[in-house]
Amino acid sequence: MSSHKTTATVPEIARRGGVVRAGSRVVPEEVPIAFSYGGSTQAVMMGTPGDLEDFAVGFSLTEGIISSMAEIEEITVVDEGRGLDVQVRLAEDKEDALRLRRRHMAGPVGCGLCGIESIEQAVRVVPDVSRVSMMITAIDVTEAVSALNGAQPLHAQTHAVHGAGFYLPASGLVAVREDVGRHNALDKLAGAVLRQGLTGEQGVVVVTSRISVEMVQKTAILGAGVLIAISAPTALAIRTAEEAGMTLIALTRGEDFEIFTRSDRITTGVVADVA
Amino acid sequence: MSSHKTTATVPEIARRGGVVRAGSRVVPEEVPIAFSYGGSTQAVMMGTPGDLEDFAVGFSLTEGIISSMAEIEEITVVDEGRGLDVQVRLAEDKEDALRLRRRHMAGPVGCGLCGIESIEQAVRVVPDVSRVSMMITAIDVTEAVSALNGAQPLHAQTHAVHGAGFYLPASGLVAVREDVGRHNALDKLAGAVLRQGLTGEQGVVVVTSRISVEMVQKTAILGAGVLIAISAPTALAIRTAEEAGMTLIALTRGEDFEIFTRSDRITTGVVADVA
Repeated sequence: MSSHKTTATVPEIARRGGVVRAGSRVVPEEVPIAFSYGGSTQAVMMGTPGDLEDFAVGFSLTEGIISSMAEIEEITVVDEGRGLDVQVRLAEDKEDALRLRRRHMAGPVGCGLCGIESIEQAVRVVPDVSRVSMMITAIDVTEAVSALNGAQPLHAQTHAVHGAGFYLPASGLVAVREDVGRHNALDKLAGAVLRQGLTGEQGVVVVTSRISVEMVQKTAILGAGVLIAISAPTALAIRTAEEAGMTLIALTRGEDFEIFTRSDRITTGVVADVA
Repeated sequence: MSSHKTTATVPEIARRGGVVRAGSRVVPEEVPIAFSYGGSTQAVMMGTPGDLEDFAVGFSLTEGIISSMAEIEEITVVDEGRGLDVQVRLAEDKEDALRLRRRHMAGPVGCGLCGIESIEQAVRVVPDVSRVSMMITAIDVTEAVSALNGAQPLHAQTHAVHGAGFYLPASGLVAVREDVGRHNALDKLAGAVLRQGLTGEQGVVVVTSRISVEMVQKTAILGAGVLIAISAPTALAIRTAEEAGMTLIALTRGEDFEIFTRSDRITTGVVADVA
């Protein structure tokens, strides 16, 4: 297991109102986290060293390495000192398939992908979630964001990490995960959802961060039909949500918010009342 | 050249103060940007399609592919429709060296790096900037951040992108670059600094974003001894700045700020006055 902590208390010199004082501050930790399958490293991310089993499950899912929990046999976290190696053992046929995929990808020079193929890979087709039957109210949007804001212990200490939550209209927020990286926070959440025996379509994903295209991709792969963000989306994220049939709500502040796609999933206080 | 725009105006339904209205919003564009050297793709990033020549120079510098502008012979931006391929032609000996490095990196399975080597690579040693003689005042800190806040046209329109600026105590802000990604904004800035015939040690890097370790690495590779951020740093970023001998100032709000490393570069209003 990991001896890495999620925060550190560091000395600082603060200037406030013209007064200078030596003090300290709690900041988030950030360590290299490698994911290995069958002994080979697939990726290394800088992230917060917590909830690593969730992270491994979520990363494996959103990277298309697994499609269900059952395909993972074992997760072992190895402390490599300067970083963590999260070793995932897959069911045997899955491991063979991944090995083949890797061979195919590795060319004689570097990544072996030409410019066009790589660009195409970056804008990969996302799963269709247009038929997800989730319906929410304007009050759900406000409550999901408010609950997320109140359930981020790491952010409360550091004011410097992202949070991702899973909200069920009937039960409220059922999972929250945090990380210095917003993609990592969402991957950890996806893993937590699966490990709790839930599926994406049963709830709403709510995040503190801005919405880039990868956030929409990961939410669609998890199978959720609704994504709510506190911050703003990019144009490509909106187009991708539109194509996937996902409801994208962003710029939520108190009871105010903006809906960019599939507003028909919001039942009250919005669609019927467009001025 | 690129026909990609940096922003898009999208329709939205806004709920404000309980009133629901259909309207529109300006959001930042995000496209896959590939960097190719000698016809092979080195990396693909999601980014804002502006200042691509600066981005190419800055990325080449901070990734260790070049050490000076003179090593780049030509930059051509090819519009691939769904993304942009930024093709960099290096001086011949540099291109050969990069080709060799790629061959060495590409193993038979995937990235060919084991977990430990990859983790080590993620925490690569940063250049020593401890001897950079830049000295600033508390007023410089406030002015650099205030100038950056006022010089971000894309952020003024979208409220959703990061900015990076280069500030000279004698002349003020001499370059600002923006991007949906904070690493990209800093790479674009590094390229702009070099293309203006400046060197990193002549100024101060000031960014709107949080400071992860990569932001410190890139600033050190540019050669700057001072990094100022509006948001918070991670613990690893602080340790890395300490090792590199870099002055790291963060959490700047009006005239307030916090100094985490090498406070001796701030001449007035701080060190002499620690209570």
